[in-house]
Amino acid sequence: MRKLLLFSLVVFIMNSAYSQESDEKVIEKIFDNVLVSNEAYNNLKHLCKYAPGRLIGSEESVIAVHFMKEYLEKLGVDTVFLQEFETPAWKCNHISIRMLLGDTEINLRADALGPSPSTPEKGLIANVIEVQGIEDLKSREKSEIEGKIIFYNRPVDMTFINTFRVYGSAVDQRYYGPAVAAELGAAGVLVRSVSTRVDTFPHTGATGFGEKRIPCAALSTVDANILSDALKIDNNLKVKMIIDAEDIDIITSFNLIADIVGNEYPDEYIVVGGHIDSWHNTDGAHDDGAGCVQSADVLRIFKELGIKNNRTIRVILYMDEELFQKGGTSYAEYTEENNIKHYMALEADAGGFSPEGFTVDASDSIVEFISGYRKILEPYGIYYIKKGGTGVDIEPLKKFGVPLMGYRTNPHRYMDLHHSAYDTFDKIHPRELQLGSGCMAAMIYLIDKHGL
Amino acid sequence: MRKLLLFSLVVFIMNSAYSQESDEKVIEKIFDNVLVSNEAYNNLKHLCKYAPGRLIGSEESVIAVHFMKEYLEKLGVDTVFLQEFETPAWKCNHISIRMLLGDTEINLRADALGPSPSTPEKGLIANVIEVQGIEDLKSREKSEIEGKIIFYNRPVDMTFINTFRVYGSAVDQRYYGPAVAAELGAAGVLVRSVSTRVDTFPHTGATGFGEKRIPCAALSTVDANILSDALKIDNNLKVKMIIDAEDIDIITSFNLIADIVGNEYPDEYIVVGGHIDSWHNTDGAHDDGAGCVQSADVLRIFKELGIKNNRTIRVILYMDEELFQKGGTSYAEYTEENNIKHYMALEADAGGFSPEGFTVDASDSIVEFISGYRKILEPYGIYYIKKGGTGVDIEPLKKFGVPLMGYRTNPHRYMDLHHSAYDTFDKIHPRELQLGSGCMAAMIYLIDKHGL
Repeated sequence: MRKLLLFSLVVFIMNSAYSQESDEKVIEKIFDNVLVSNEAYNNLKHLCKYAPGRLIGSEESVIAVHFMKEYLEKLGVDTVFLQEFETPAWKCNHISIRMLLGDTEINLRADALGPSPSTPEKGLIANVIEVQGIEDLKSREKSEIEGKIIFYNRPVDMTFINTFRVYGSAVDQRYYGPAVAAELGAAGVLVRSVSTRVDTFPHTGATGFGEKRIPCAALSTVDANILSDALKIDNNLKVKMIIDAEDIDIITSFNLIADIVGNEYPDEYIVVGGHIDSWHNTDGAHDDGAGCVQSADVLRIFKELGIKNNRTIRVILYMDEELFQKGGTSYAEYTEENNIKHYMALEADAGGFSPEGFTVDASDSIVEFISGYRKILEPYGIYYIKKGGTGVDIEPLKKFGVPLMGYRTNPHRYMDLHHSAYDTFDKIHPRELQLGSGCMAAMIYLIDKHGL
Repeated sequence: MRKLLLFSLVVFIMNSAYSQESDEKVIEKIFDNVLVSNEAYNNLKHLCKYAPGRLIGSEESVIAVHFMKEYLEKLGVDTVFLQEFETPAWKCNHISIRMLLGDTEINLRADALGPSPSTPEKGLIANVIEVQGIEDLKSREKSEIEGKIIFYNRPVDMTFINTFRVYGSAVDQRYYGPAVAAELGAAGVLVRSVSTRVDTFPHTGATGFGEKRIPCAALSTVDANILSDALKIDNNLKVKMIIDAEDIDIITSFNLIADIVGNEYPDEYIVVGGHIDSWHNTDGAHDDGAGCVQSADVLRIFKELGIKNNRTIRVILYMDEELFQKGGTSYAEYTEENNIKHYMALEADAGGFSPEGFTVDASDSIVEFISGYRKILEPYGIYYIKKGGTGVDIEPLKKFGVPLMGYRTNPHRYMDLHHSAYDTFDKIHPRELQLGSGCMAAMIYLIDKHGL
């Protein structure tokens, strides 16, 4: 009996060791740990090497999930499981975009937008109408548009400081442009890549079709310039688009979920996650392999440092952020069916660059409360915590009143590589990646300990 | 007469146009300009391509100065001149560091520290004593040290968040280690590169000798590990050091200076600068080609936007920050002789990464006053303005009571490349570099306009 008492006492002391330590001390330990750990970095290297192009429905997406599942199981967390859902999918098998100049065909570097339909097997050959955006297109005569390939070529506005706003200055052409062109009778669409570089990498992305779908692709910025220059010489030139893409009817896919059960309030979930899928044309190192390995790293940190959590910390690696956003919506449905209560959800989907801040989508009082943590996190590079949008995958939890957060990083290089083959592992810096794990773990530790 | 009056009125209106605009508006124009300009970026590309390894006394250092001089002249600023000074210099012609293992010699990637003396032509061959730092060395018997090659192999402490502190955790071995070893009778010194990477790039740097000098070199971190591992197997192994270096008696060198004369207080100088020299082994893209092209860009911005300055804005591209710091001291002497009054001096020598803040070395009231500008500069990435060290080149102005400032950038990648061949132009990001020009121009605009 004395032995048992002693044992209980030791366990109690161990459990409460962290609650007796100051927040500053625990956070310092977190960063001391991440800056010499290389697990997140090595996991990301593996993902990029063995599961590039992991679009929902692809073999690579399954390889990625199983690799991360195995890793989380090895960490010895309490639960690891796949939350299945049914969804349509899409894939691109082949693309070729060529300018026809007399007898010569000049290849333009391009990638299909998702979910572009296929062209006829022999290609769609048509004249090209270059426009500077959707309004420009709408101002044209319908007769000018019908049967043509519409070429949206408005460049991004580089004068925004945050590259997510640079992106926002032109992405409407990609997201809404094909649907508008289809309504007006166009036969196909080419879009200038939404990128902060002038280079030869096409940047793909989702496009939002209505009833009518037409073949559509993104040209690299260099190739958009080539086409535009060629049109200045001969505005009668034709382009041949060949896209071989497939709608995939219904598949079973899944989100990967792993929990460390809370000691005080095991039924209250704090979610931290990223999305495991990427576009077909990229290794998806920053978008969003980084967010996935960092989220998994939060659990590693809690386990390795023996930090006891009051609430259940749940890592979710969402499938299908890119194409139809079915991972996020299906998880929200699943939690509604199972009456799962979320205390908070944090998403990391802004690249693995150095930490800069957190955005919070919650009541003003919660935003103000959380922003009080800026001071304790500033030495680690968190310069702001402010109201703002968070993440596509956690957004469906908002309707249940869940406070949402987004982890934000130095934005200057992100739109160079987003949705393109340029998003490779060598663009990842280990310290920057690992500081992100630390910031996310520290924020979750603070919210778990002190509540909202 | 009416014509003259009208002309005067137009000139007056143009001159006062900026003083009538809000600071916010002028600063927005500065950033709109830098984010679409590529002059600083292209100048840096040129420096790295045509004047790499521009250590004081080298032909490359002269090429670099003349290239930047021509650029500044083309900007149409009021004065461009070379401020000459006499100085000793040093150069390394050849280095070879080899482990002798039986009949085999294994090359270790290394670079001479400045100003290492030469070894005998056939090399210095000696046993190696690995130590973890200067205190460790001092604790050894003198007999153990005499005639040996001392190998300082304490790695950096990666757990500091700011890599300048990571650097500070081990650089004492490089700066003081050779002198201490020389005093204790050692024959040569090898130092583990002070770097945040484990790779094959040696990182050189200055070492501070007393009376006695012995050959000394930095090993890349990988090669330091190779040597350390080999010593574990055979602690009797010998290393052969060959260094062919030259002391250069006295040469004439120069700082490059360019002014835009102030409209109100032309005799009060606001200095902005970087150092044009680099180590012999590197293109010196971040250290400190970046600071030079950004400083020159400040003048371009003032000229291009027609911002009228009250005080004279002086760009100084200092020579010899790396070896003997003679550019900074000789400029201070020159200004003392010529009774030049400095209102403020700002140095950019922390790499061309994205902006993060400014440090200020001045009275508390001035620090507090300047830190009030954080708010207006935060949208552009200036997250702190705080008391702190500034720059080696402007430091000699401190004794005249000049308020000093340092431009600070995101530090995470800097010590990967500092003083090594890894510091190449491809590590420069145009937006990050150009935002730096903008932050420096904006700070100088504010201080010039509102005073201190």
